[in-house]
Amino acid sequence: MISILRLGHRIHRDIRVTTHLALTARAFLADNFYYTGQSDSSFENSIEKINQKWGSLFRVRYIPDYKNFLKEIKALKIHLTMYGELLPNKIEEIRNCKNDILIMVGGQKVPPYIYQIADLNISVTTQPISEISSVAIFLNEFFKGKPLTHEFKNSKNKVIPQQKSKKVIKR
Amino acid sequence: MISILRLGHRIHRDIRVTTHLALTARAFLADNFYYTGQSDSSFENSIEKINQKWGSLFRVRYIPDYKNFLKEIKALKIHLTMYGELLPNKIEEIRNCKNDILIMVGGQKVPPYIYQIADLNISVTTQPISEISSVAIFLNEFFKGKPLTHEFKNSKNKVIPQQKSKKVIKR
Repeated sequence: MISILRLGHRIHRDIRVTTHLALTARAFLADNFYYTGQSDSSFENSIEKINQKWGSLFRVRYIPDYKNFLKEIKALKIHLTMYGELLPNKIEEIRNCKNDILIMVGGQKVPPYIYQIADLNISVTTQPISEISSVAIFLNEFFKGKPLTHEFKNSKNKVIPQQKSKKVIKR
Repeated sequence: MISILRLGHRIHRDIRVTTHLALTARAFLADNFYYTGQSDSSFENSIEKINQKWGSLFRVRYIPDYKNFLKEIKALKIHLTMYGELLPNKIEEIRNCKNDILIMVGGQKVPPYIYQIADLNISVTTQPISEISSVAIFLNEFFKGKPLTHEFKNSKNKVIPQQKSKKVIKR
């Protein structure tokens, strides 16, 4: 089981970034998406609609108290930050872990608490990028490229890759 | 030379997504970032500040007329879309191309013109994700993971990866 924890969502400012982040997590085969900050039913509904149309059992859940959540959850806690250890040096160790995995990513300034409670602070490049690219790269490396060709079995719609157009079949 | 063309930027709605996209392109070793839609000096300045602090010669340029631009630019034009051909099937062919590369990504609805003028329409997963993750994955695959450990030589600041904290040296 692999889950994302997105810290500090703000409804107006972050709606698009958080949506892109959740869509990325879903397509790259995360199971759950937890978020803190402001509860946002419009965001949750938009992801649920994607699930219904394109498949997956990906679940979104709002977490009111993240410190409590982090104390209770049993998982290898990985915080993605440009200041952490290099991903290529740690990915094999992470893949070999038998526990569930929780990937934590910031929105606004991440509190020092997160760096401390993390079992691993991991950098996807040591440059300022985006939590969206960090999660995409982390999951794609973790799953060794499998998400790039994955098909969700329970989807209503399926893309048939085309050279110059769009082709979607219903099933 | 590898460049990004971001279509249809809207100042208020897209500022954060376009910024995340440009930061991702920069960190994953693109040379240029072109964008169409609304000209946005605040966005351009924010990327220039990152360059000054963290290095790279990454350049941002506004394109008022993208059809003209696309007619004139000499490059292999690749459009990233969930409806295109699977990335793993085409990446070797793209790597072997001797020309410059232009990666086109949509904001809002992408006009059919882009699918047609593209030399390749490529899908980074056949799922709805984010142009930010598409560009990150495309470039990381193209450069075979090199961006994950790349250091920009001309940076003022350099991250020293840490287990539990932040360490940045000036140079």
